[in-house]
Amino acid sequence: MPTRNKPVIAVIGASKCSKKLRDMAAQVGKHIAENGGVIVCGGMGGIMEGAARGAKEGGGVTIGILPTDDKKDANPYIDYAIPTGFGEGRNIIVVRAADVVIALPGKYGTLSEMAFARLFNKPVISISAWKLGDDIIQVEDPVEAAELALELAVRKK
Amino acid sequence: MPTRNKPVIAVIGASKCSKKLRDMAAQVGKHIAENGGVIVCGGMGGIMEGAARGAKEGGGVTIGILPTDDKKDANPYIDYAIPTGFGEGRNIIVVRAADVVIALPGKYGTLSEMAFARLFNKPVISISAWKLGDDIIQVEDPVEAAELALELAVRKK
Amino acid sequence: MPTRNKPVIAVIGASKCSKKLRDMAAQVGKHIAENGGVIVCGGMGGIMEGAARGAKEGGGVTIGILPTDDKKDANPYIDYAIPTGFGEGRNIIVVRAADVVIALPGKYGTLSEMAFARLFNKPVISISAWKLGDDIIQVEDPVEAAELALELAVRKK
Amino acid sequence: MPTRNKPVIAVIGASKCSKKLRDMAAQVGKHIAENGGVIVCGGMGGIMEGAARGAKEGGGVTIGILPTDDKKDANPYIDYAIPTGFGEGRNIIVVRAADVVIALPGKYGTLSEMAFARLFNKPVISISAWKLGDDIIQVEDPVEAAELALELAVRKK
Repeated sequence: MPTRNKPVIAVIGASKCSKKLRDMAAQVGKHIAENGGVIVCGGMGGIMEGAARGAKEGGGVTIGILPTDDKKDANPYIDYAIPTGFGEGRNIIVVRAADVVIALPGKYGTLSEMAFARLFNKPVISISAWKLGDDIIQVEDPVEAAELALELAVRKK
Repeated sequence: MPTRNKPVIAVIGASKCSKKLRDMAAQVGKHIAENGGVIVCGGMGGIMEGAARGAKEGGGVTIGILPTDDKKDANPYIDYAIPTGFGEGRNIIVVRAADVVIALPGKYGTLSEMAFARLFNKPVISISAWKLGDDIIQVEDPVEAAELALELAVRKK
Repeated sequence: MPTRNKPVIAVIGASKCSKKLRDMAAQVGKHIAENGGVIVCGGMGGIMEGAARGAKEGGGVTIGILPTDDKKDANPYIDYAIPTGFGEGRNIIVVRAADVVIALPGKYGTLSEMAFARLFNKPVISISAWKLGDDIIQVEDPVEAAELALELAVRKK
Repeated sequence: MPTRNKPVIAVIGASKCSKKLRDMAAQVGKHIAENGGVIVCGGMGGIMEGAARGAKEGGGVTIGILPTDDKKDANPYIDYAIPTGFGEGRNIIVVRAADVVIALPGKYGTLSEMAFARLFNKPVISISAWKLGDDIIQVEDPVEAAELALELAVRKK
């Protein structure tokens, strides 16, 4: 598949989190990468770092849309860092860059991204993230979430 | 009070809504204006137009942070239109410009603004908008919401 | 004239400058305010502060589109501060908010704003700022620049 | 070299241009790609398309920071499209994402990007683009420009 047609999955969630959650994000990222998907995220720590680490383990590509203006702020698993200098104003770009969004636990930054995703009518798969009604797909298992995300991304095209 | 010290209250909600909700937004805007507050909003229709109309009836000042790049797109009750050209990327600016946010019913754009407000630790008063737990202050009466917003804005300084 | 129909003039230039240049910016701001215009600027020091100070001396209204996310960073002559949190990404908004741009000496930030203004086909009046060919109107006297700006702003409507 | 350490070169210029200029941009893109550099651009037509096409011919990777909110608007040679929805407000992000900027002929959008690049103290190499004084490196040959860009990008690290 040409690179430009690969599914792009955003993984969102807290920039600080437990090892358990980071590992869960890594499972998501790895499975997506192993199955031909690209990971986009906010490029910082926590869930974002976990997802990017997993994607690199899975041989994939990672894009980080940074709040800061310096690409050195990206976590070490980001291949392509886009330093926006827009602070949390970059959240909307993370979502716009993705076909499908997978949300792990996070606070209000994560919620802003889930809201933008639904505003743009993009599927949101939640693994224990904010509950916002039937519009959000609830999944418990990270591999199942990754598979569903890839399936929905392909169906959209 | 010098203009720069006036409380700035964001009123957010759907860009299309019933006359009843628009009038409720107008009550909020009017009460805030009559008591020395400035209204900031997204500058478009629905709740935003209602709030701006009320503020002008109350002799106040209204600022509209527009998604489009043309100030002619502002509703007729906006004094100062800021056309960003950033689409829904302007939502974060509406919130950053305010001391306190009053949310009326709206969909995912409104939710993104409520999320940003709480991310920045700004008080959010909801009149039948999204329920997000104890972090959001629930009020039923528009005048009561306006009064509380002014009180919280002053207390913050 | 209703507020929304008042000409909005952006004054741009260095955030640090000599007293002489700050006073020249103040002359521009004062003359625009005395003749019914609104001043929009980047809200910080130097030329921006001079223009805003002059506008307040002239009884006018000033809007500052800030790079930071805190309205307390605005210079003391700003009535309505819009803290974007977008860093220099806010330059484009300063220009979009204006009918006409007056440029005083500045460096590359100023140049980015002059470029955006011409990209959007807005008149740019330069008082010793960047020379970019016939597209930029060169004027030496601050009062003359202010008068021309008001005239061009009204003609555009 | 790990992906994250590859030099990232922005190629900027008009979105509509002659075949000759597009081919010149392609030469730049190809040489950069063949020597391990990544191309970032605005993702649209003209110079941006030429540079991306050349980079793909050279076996490289291309990133397009789009003004629109739909990745389908990217030119066909973009691997990773970042649809910002910020209009020309995305110009600053193109520059922030790059280590070095190569400017080909363009109008005021191009000038805004050259200005931002110098504001952020990033080297700008001009092939017949805007002349802005000694701060801009003038080069005539596209391959020479590409080589210099790679050299300056590596030196910065």
